[in-house]
Amino acid sequence: MKTKIGVLGTGAWGTALASILLKNGHIVKMWGIDQDEINNLKTGYNNRYFGHKKLVKSPDLVSSDLAAVVDGCDYLLLAIPSKFFNDVLAKLANVLKDRKVNLINVAKGMDGQTKQFWSEVIKQAFSKNLLSLTSLLGPSFATEVFDNHPTVINAVSNDMTSCKKVCELFNNDTFQLVPFDNELSAQMFAAIKNVCAIGTGIVFEQTTSANTRSALLTKLFNEMDRLYESLAKDKYRPKDCTQLNGIGDFILTCTNDQSRNFSFGKLVAKYGIKNALEKNINTVEGYLAAKTMYEIIKNNNLELKLLITIYQILYEDLDKSFLVKKLIN
Amino acid sequence: MKTKIGVLGTGAWGTALASILLKNGHIVKMWGIDQDEINNLKTGYNNRYFGHKKLVKSPDLVSSDLAAVVDGCDYLLLAIPSKFFNDVLAKLANVLKDRKVNLINVAKGMDGQTKQFWSEVIKQAFSKNLLSLTSLLGPSFATEVFDNHPTVINAVSNDMTSCKKVCELFNNDTFQLVPFDNELSAQMFAAIKNVCAIGTGIVFEQTTSANTRSALLTKLFNEMDRLYESLAKDKYRPKDCTQLNGIGDFILTCTNDQSRNFSFGKLVAKYGIKNALEKNINTVEGYLAAKTMYEIIKNNNLELKLLITIYQILYEDLDKSFLVKKLIN
Repeated sequence: MKTKIGVLGTGAWGTALASILLKNGHIVKMWGIDQDEINNLKTGYNNRYFGHKKLVKSPDLVSSDLAAVVDGCDYLLLAIPSKFFNDVLAKLANVLKDRKVNLINVAKGMDGQTKQFWSEVIKQAFSKNLLSLTSLLGPSFATEVFDNHPTVINAVSNDMTSCKKVCELFNNDTFQLVPFDNELSAQMFAAIKNVCAIGTGIVFEQTTSANTRSALLTKLFNEMDRLYESLAKDKYRPKDCTQLNGIGDFILTCTNDQSRNFSFGKLVAKYGIKNALEKNINTVEGYLAAKTMYEIIKNNNLELKLLITIYQILYEDLDKSFLVKKLIN
Repeated sequence: MKTKIGVLGTGAWGTALASILLKNGHIVKMWGIDQDEINNLKTGYNNRYFGHKKLVKSPDLVSSDLAAVVDGCDYLLLAIPSKFFNDVLAKLANVLKDRKVNLINVAKGMDGQTKQFWSEVIKQAFSKNLLSLTSLLGPSFATEVFDNHPTVINAVSNDMTSCKKVCELFNNDTFQLVPFDNELSAQMFAAIKNVCAIGTGIVFEQTTSANTRSALLTKLFNEMDRLYESLAKDKYRPKDCTQLNGIGDFILTCTNDQSRNFSFGKLVAKYGIKNALEKNINTVEGYLAAKTMYEIIKNNNLELKLLITIYQILYEDLDKSFLVKKLIN
């Protein structure tokens, strides 16, 4: 069945997911603010992210008129960079007024200002509009999704019925969403894995040893889960960390040069934290998340020595060699 | 305190662990049957595995006289290749007679004949001799241990007091054993991760996609744990799979060209199973383990579609493309 979906954001993720939805035969309308990207998308391309590879043709695919895009949509997919997130939510609330809508979110992690996970931010902003909220989280680089490399990630929602409908919109022979029912663990792992990736970047730059790298990944993964356990308390489930949005995204992010956080960690090991911050032009979510994470660790008196060491290298000028030292002692 | 330890086996693992023990100041005696390796070790080298890197000097380090090596040892470390394992155990039983001894085992996985895990084989063979048995299992290539790359693995035993003593023998500033109390999960993961590594080798040879690889690793890891759950029944603990001998060794073995099973998987994808078997001169433990694993899966009616697909590619001529197909469907 054809469904009408509005995709807010003309970046890599918005375009890649729009291409999946178009391929599945849905009616897709994209909204953006970058006039170059809009003009480019009108010709069927998004050269900035995907070079000369063409999207499935769709008349009037993209517009800068938010009300026109949102009009008549069953679903709205939020694919907005963190720094514009709150602005766009305000614009959208203004357009929606009392209208009910299903939202799909791909923002990972948390708002640096309020320290709330993005899914919470959305729920608060649209308390009167929300029919359902589903987040797409798991091991996925947008370019590979656009290129039809087989990708399997989680659709995460506390409402499984709506979640399964979202899966049906997207699933095809190269892209698959697996329903998962724990928003807290998924958002938490999404945020903390970025901190871990800076840590693995720092160590991978210093050693090629598979022994050292594997031990580091194992211990960081366990620390991440213990941090989650301390937040989840009696809602903690030991298997949540083994999902695609847990171990899957952790492996992808913590071992791949395509990951901004991992690459940033390498820069830190190579040039020191000050120079790394100067050289880095992209937002490094893990750098900001490390600060929030450290506050949680301190407030809860948790002994998570590797995560603490990553924080100390980033904010207290601790030498990069300490991660491996702490791994052994 | 100086402890006398006999290392049975002059291969890579025996030599690497002997070098750790020597560095820690213990009295080490090695036993071997390969006269070239023995002569080589007498000069302070094991060129075959470690090139021109020298061991810590030790007078009379190595001998082919088993009784002389075993004499007066507090611990015996078994570092014997699978194919000689039962032979050496028989020889050792003959030498030990009624003597009590602490055994340390580094053999992973199971006896192809009896389908028993090696730790069980050892317990049966030395029922009257055994003061304690500890297995060393976790993410570790012997050459990296020999080269002092920071390495952290598990010392696994049902007897935690003895296990901690073994940790004390080995632990130093580059090598660390972490005590762990579940022999069954550790031996099981040690065996099945080799089958998984053949599977990841098959897929990694076909695609460089980080999305696909991460999804595969996640789903295989979960299938491995579900297989363990079905064997462990009410003894199942969800966190056992996140240990160094679980996820740690899984990541190392399933993503590294140094792993024989992973490399074999790549050969299978490149040349087909028949040619891969002909080209491969090393024992591929995962190839044999896949058969035993499949019997367990069938007997227990388990729906572990990726593990079954690996078996079918290896033994039933299924096309290599099916692993990714099953990942998506």
